[in-house]
Amino acid sequence: MDTSEFRKRGKEMVDYIADYYDQLDTRQVYPDVEPGYLRHLIPDSAPQEPESFEDVLKDVERIIMPGVTHWHSPYFFAYFPTASSFPALLADVLSGGIGCIGFSWGSASEATLVTLLAARTKMIRRVQSENPELTEADIMSRLVAYASDQAHSSVERAGLIGGVMIKNIPSDDKFAVRGSALKKVLHEDRAAGLIPFFFCATLGTTPCCSFDRLLELGPICNRETIWMHVDAAYAGSAFICPEFRYLLNGVEFADSFNFNPHKWLLVNFDCSALWVKKRSDLTSAFKLDPLYLQHCHQDSGNSSFRSLKMWFVFRMYGIKGLQEYIRKHVKLSHEFENLVHQDERFEICAEVTLGLVCFRLKASNELNEALLKSINESRKIHLVPCHLREKFVLRFAICSRTVESFHVQFAWKHISKLATDLLKAQEQPQQ
Amino acid sequence: MDTSEFRKRGKEMVDYIADYYDQLDTRQVYPDVEPGYLRHLIPDSAPQEPESFEDVLKDVERIIMPGVTHWHSPYFFAYFPTASSFPALLADVLSGGIGCIGFSWGSASEATLVTLLAARTKMIRRVQSENPELTEADIMSRLVAYASDQAHSSVERAGLIGGVMIKNIPSDDKFAVRGSALKKVLHEDRAAGLIPFFFCATLGTTPCCSFDRLLELGPICNRETIWMHVDAAYAGSAFICPEFRYLLNGVEFADSFNFNPHKWLLVNFDCSALWVKKRSDLTSAFKLDPLYLQHCHQDSGNSSFRSLKMWFVFRMYGIKGLQEYIRKHVKLSHEFENLVHQDERFEICAEVTLGLVCFRLKASNELNEALLKSINESRKIHLVPCHLREKFVLRFAICSRTVESFHVQFAWKHISKLATDLLKAQEQPQQ
Repeated sequence: MDTSEFRKRGKEMVDYIADYYDQLDTRQVYPDVEPGYLRHLIPDSAPQEPESFEDVLKDVERIIMPGVTHWHSPYFFAYFPTASSFPALLADVLSGGIGCIGFSWGSASEATLVTLLAARTKMIRRVQSENPELTEADIMSRLVAYASDQAHSSVERAGLIGGVMIKNIPSDDKFAVRGSALKKVLHEDRAAGLIPFFFCATLGTTPCCSFDRLLELGPICNRETIWMHVDAAYAGSAFICPEFRYLLNGVEFADSFNFNPHKWLLVNFDCSALWVKKRSDLTSAFKLDPLYLQHCHQDSGNSSFRSLKMWFVFRMYGIKGLQEYIRKHVKLSHEFENLVHQDERFEICAEVTLGLVCFRLKASNELNEALLKSINESRKIHLVPCHLREKFVLRFAICSRTVESFHVQFAWKHISKLATDLLKAQEQPQQ
Repeated sequence: MDTSEFRKRGKEMVDYIADYYDQLDTRQVYPDVEPGYLRHLIPDSAPQEPESFEDVLKDVERIIMPGVTHWHSPYFFAYFPTASSFPALLADVLSGGIGCIGFSWGSASEATLVTLLAARTKMIRRVQSENPELTEADIMSRLVAYASDQAHSSVERAGLIGGVMIKNIPSDDKFAVRGSALKKVLHEDRAAGLIPFFFCATLGTTPCCSFDRLLELGPICNRETIWMHVDAAYAGSAFICPEFRYLLNGVEFADSFNFNPHKWLLVNFDCSALWVKKRSDLTSAFKLDPLYLQHCHQDSGNSSFRSLKMWFVFRMYGIKGLQEYIRKHVKLSHEFENLVHQDERFEICAEVTLGLVCFRLKASNELNEALLKSINESRKIHLVPCHLREKFVLRFAICSRTVESFHVQFAWKHISKLATDLLKAQEQPQQ
């Protein structure tokens, strides 16, 4: 394919994407296929001779699309949003086209890992400078990191990778970690000879979007020289609106902060922003200098060209446009929350602050599991569950860029109807 | 921006990319700007109100492009290639447009890290089952991993992250690790009470594209239950050609194998393929199951939608087209090698097997450094250096999708002329 064919095919692809979005609400949000369905639809090996673009694109619609979960469908209310916007897509085409390689962006999970490792190195050096007789292995075996019992599994995985102990701090009745809970665990662990070195606070937990109390936790961490990392992967985007910034109070105590514009700030996957208070804590933990990676200006902090899509989005939405976008999503989640409130069969399971509503039938876990199953099996909308304490809970997340009140109302009517059917079936005697 | 504007702007962007490639050989390959130049050209904050696409695109050309290193310029001979092709770009537009999230692809550095961690877990469990009195920390402090003294810095970094010792195995006069060298180190380390658990073999090292001897190394690793990981990040793509597969002999002993189609197989960044002999070694080392990440079919091995671009490339080039591409690059590197051979002032510093030529003036390191400096400062072509033993060496890598004999000939004339100027200046008495 030369540039003149690329001009033709590229424009066809642009139309394909535009058509895709124009008709996205008519596509079934969640696929019917079973894993492995593709195996019989594609050949065992790559073709010897080139094929035409038409043939490939025909197969996209015929065999690939039936397997796609449409994350941008307005009927997708699962997980958290993954961002998508036309300016970001355009920037991606451009940065893909230029194909310039950069090195310094990652995802929130990587941010947690990288900061945990930097904190580990920092603490090992500190302890060794005071106790030169201790080996690195001695110290490692006593290090302990902390996160909320509501924190994302990537924190536990970071501990696993880093070879250090990770402990959960019990959250309160609002699923938030309080200073008193951290203090209690620190006291016990110090007494047992452990060395606390890292606390990952979460703003906007994955199960229910709860917020750890930075104002209480930060001073404790600072006093005890524990690295405080703030994982605001989802909620971070909301802080573009002043009315949500009270949730950030205490961030001044943090050693590092991460959020994912690719979740909720209209920047296509992937784009994750990590801020560190003291840059050298990171660089000195990982510094290795092979000659072929030495640039004259390598310490100047150049980031990957993925920033291009962020720049396109900032400019073409403006801060106001981004604020409106966040506010619209939050409004829609409250609209759904109100619908749930009005139905006595249901309960809200956690405070609704941003775009996530956790709810369930006032009934057994089994019945709620059956409800979720019937919702997802009907393929009209898509939701995922979580556990809050021992309860099986349904998560309704406002995700799509194009979701409107209409879709939320439809989703609720649909859920409500399936609940009615389920409860009716329950009342029938078993066959 | 709605879909109808996206249709218009998307097509303009396609033309912009096509124009970019049509005129890429007229752009200066390496920028003149200093780091930080952008700071004064862009505002301190994002705009409150949205801006127009025209304004943004104008700024791309005015302020962004002057800072770009053109990795796809036919005058770019630095590092290794980073892939780019129109089918892959089209697939990226599509997968970006669909915006479906997947989880299981990474880069070669991540592959090394992930396999090292899996090997670490496996060895810890094995040692503990035989010696239940040992703690994990005891075992960790005795674990040792190995790689060639020519291996990529990411291997050392993986050890740093995993908290285990990493040792370099001395390579031979062809910069290859031999079985005898590994045996010697293993013998010493076992005698010292260490526990060898991981060896990272490299096929196509970054400094000079040398190849560790898998046929000698594999049986040793298997016998001593050392996980052998094969990092073929760059060279792996060449194995699509049967004539290069002799370099793979012994791969049957490997526990894991990685290569980056985004380097040399025309699949745009990023796309890295990791194969593991025993899947459960990986999954059991990292298994964590929060409810919101549990899918019914999570063990079925679904990969991210990045595979879409690989599929587009395979189909639209065909295996033959990909083989031709690799062979053309290898031919061009031999063409450059011959040019260097014909000039008595220069020497070839390592065997040329694939698309990389390591060469230098038969002169001091200082003079070779000065030559590289004058090459890169003239901005006509771009090269990076490496160290081989104590020598400062210039790396000439065939990178661009569109590089032709013409560009290679030009590059050599340019280098040769700069060398002449440099040697002449040397002969002049200092002012």
